[in-house]
Amino acid sequence: MRNFEFHNPTKLVFGKDTIRQIGEEIRRRGHHYVLMIAGGGSIRRNGVYDAVVRSLNRAGIRWDECWGVQPNPVLSKVEEMAAVAKKAGVDAVLGVGGGSVLDSAKAVAAGYYVDDVWGLFEKKEPVARALPIYSVLTLSATGSEMNGYAVITKEDEKKKWPIGGPALFPQVSIVDPSVQSTLPWEQTVNGAVDTISHIQELYFPGRDAEVTLALDESLLRTVVRVTDRLREEPGDYAARASLAWASTMALNGAAGAGVGDGDWATHALEHGLSGVHPEIAHGTGLGILFPAWILYCQDANPETFARWARNVWGRDSVEDAVAAFRAKLAEWGAPTSLKQLGVAESEIGAIAENAYSSGMHGSLKQLSLDDFRRILESAWDPA
Amino acid sequence: MRNFEFHNPTKLVFGKDTIRQIGEEIRRRGHHYVLMIAGGGSIRRNGVYDAVVRSLNRAGIRWDECWGVQPNPVLSKVEEMAAVAKKAGVDAVLGVGGGSVLDSAKAVAAGYYVDDVWGLFEKKEPVARALPIYSVLTLSATGSEMNGYAVITKEDEKKKWPIGGPALFPQVSIVDPSVQSTLPWEQTVNGAVDTISHIQELYFPGRDAEVTLALDESLLRTVVRVTDRLREEPGDYAARASLAWASTMALNGAAGAGVGDGDWATHALEHGLSGVHPEIAHGTGLGILFPAWILYCQDANPETFARWARNVWGRDSVEDAVAAFRAKLAEWGAPTSLKQLGVAESEIGAIAENAYSSGMHGSLKQLSLDDFRRILESAWDPA
Repeated sequence: MRNFEFHNPTKLVFGKDTIRQIGEEIRRRGHHYVLMIAGGGSIRRNGVYDAVVRSLNRAGIRWDECWGVQPNPVLSKVEEMAAVAKKAGVDAVLGVGGGSVLDSAKAVAAGYYVDDVWGLFEKKEPVARALPIYSVLTLSATGSEMNGYAVITKEDEKKKWPIGGPALFPQVSIVDPSVQSTLPWEQTVNGAVDTISHIQELYFPGRDAEVTLALDESLLRTVVRVTDRLREEPGDYAARASLAWASTMALNGAAGAGVGDGDWATHALEHGLSGVHPEIAHGTGLGILFPAWILYCQDANPETFARWARNVWGRDSVEDAVAAFRAKLAEWGAPTSLKQLGVAESEIGAIAENAYSSGMHGSLKQLSLDDFRRILESAWDPA
Repeated sequence: MRNFEFHNPTKLVFGKDTIRQIGEEIRRRGHHYVLMIAGGGSIRRNGVYDAVVRSLNRAGIRWDECWGVQPNPVLSKVEEMAAVAKKAGVDAVLGVGGGSVLDSAKAVAAGYYVDDVWGLFEKKEPVARALPIYSVLTLSATGSEMNGYAVITKEDEKKKWPIGGPALFPQVSIVDPSVQSTLPWEQTVNGAVDTISHIQELYFPGRDAEVTLALDESLLRTVVRVTDRLREEPGDYAARASLAWASTMALNGAAGAGVGDGDWATHALEHGLSGVHPEIAHGTGLGILFPAWILYCQDANPETFARWARNVWGRDSVEDAVAAFRAKLAEWGAPTSLKQLGVAESEIGAIAENAYSSGMHGSLKQLSLDDFRRILESAWDPA
């Protein structure tokens, strides 16, 4: 097992009817005036916005609102909102929405203290200072609610890059899984695939770390099982809550303890892909790319890939397990090839270069630009 | 799944050669003068004390030392050390040892601010204020290194009671599993059984919480597997590290997320037992009592007991799984009956009353004094 540090100061409040606690949690920490950051308006329809507003009012918290964060959230929007935060002089940021909203809220919180927000991404240093961050999560996928990371896209350069640091852990995050019961099936699947991908990025480089490998396998099996249940019955609260909690656990530190910092080459590939094709959802891209990465990299840690095949998919070979993984995605209605997504074969070079420019080349196996291209080729139209 | 909060602010530093970091971690948080609390002297023999002292010196931290904390740590010793802390005016407490040392350090840290330490235990209110707590763990078992609980025995009344509160989370805990490779086998087993018991206290009342139930099962299987490996090869670092991390995970919040606050009647029974017989190690008592509790209470949540039998022990009935559990303990050389420990049958009434007086009567099934007595009777000489 590798040495590790586990330090996650976020307070997570999880369960039915918990959104009403947000105002009091903010007030108790001495904050009085927040910038609320939100997406396209679904929180107006599912009652989340009203619950948040009631809670803020009851606790005597002032707030301004910034709406319009999109999936694959962009730098220009972050800059716009950081300017609002500075002008208003808020003392905290509150993201109400999915991972894109939370990541934007984190970038705004860090951007509050600098002139050049993107400079924080370019420097690739831990972010040390940010406004206090609060969140109310409405779509479980990115794990942002309980970690110190955020991913933002710089549109003009098609760079989809991460920042991280101790100041980016939310103070308090509220996860009420019941508000996710009305999500479109496709978004549920994307969240499940995102969660699976996070666990796998951490898991595959691992060895000699029985607790974490076994935890990761049990999380992967659970995500598959409860997603199947949600396909039958989207309102199954226990399944919805399990998927939400698995999604948080995937990136709150537990799933990576003692196995290193993860591989993340598949994420680089996906960021390269959705940088070029911003209409492609993160989870959709990951579901297509991960099987291809597994087949390409399995020789680098055969024992762990073999136990993944056996313990997650009940298969004797990695090839059979990848087939089962792809069959499950297809069963869920997720695309399983880049071709299916409308990506042209001629774009692969540009996507590979875009992915490679992120600097995230993998830890299990350091991939070259040519390796990136080959993986994308094998994902374009797998047999 | 039940609603829950997950909030664990402790920074855990885990791995080989990590003890040298303790001084810097204390300094970085602005503390300069600590009371070091230790046990009987094993840390002088295994190099831990020297490593701590070097690290404190290098970081410019002053310290005083209190030695002599015993297993089943007692109030009188805590009071004595709290007086030393007050007189010296230290600004933090550093426990270097196993769970008894850490629990004593926590009680001293809380006792620093009150005249009557035991009053904190009697009040049964969360402890809000304590000196900052640091720890270097040398025996994985109690989980104290990453939670806000401590258990102390008031000798004259034979009360072994817990306190808990946000102030009792260590700021930083260091776990170097390699220092545990020279532990006597019996202590390794007691730590493993303590860990199994903590997970089971949380697990058995659970239902509809797939992530946590599956995590708990994987932790239980892992503890059994790596303890078997340590029996073959006590110096197997990966196994030792897995046991240590499982022990921390058992009580850091993850193993209990969404399943309620645990049952803890078996712990009440064990506290009753070792209150009367302080020579009995906590893990030894739990190993004898838990099988008896399971057989007595299984009807209260049959689905979860059945999946425990199947997923942890590969058995089709709870009775068979309990037999496998007992056989494993016997294989490890642990006693499996109270009779074997030299407890007289005539003492059962007093032990039951002592256990009952703790107020911890179980949550899965609220047990009466008579229930406590019956469980103890069935553990006295199980077939």
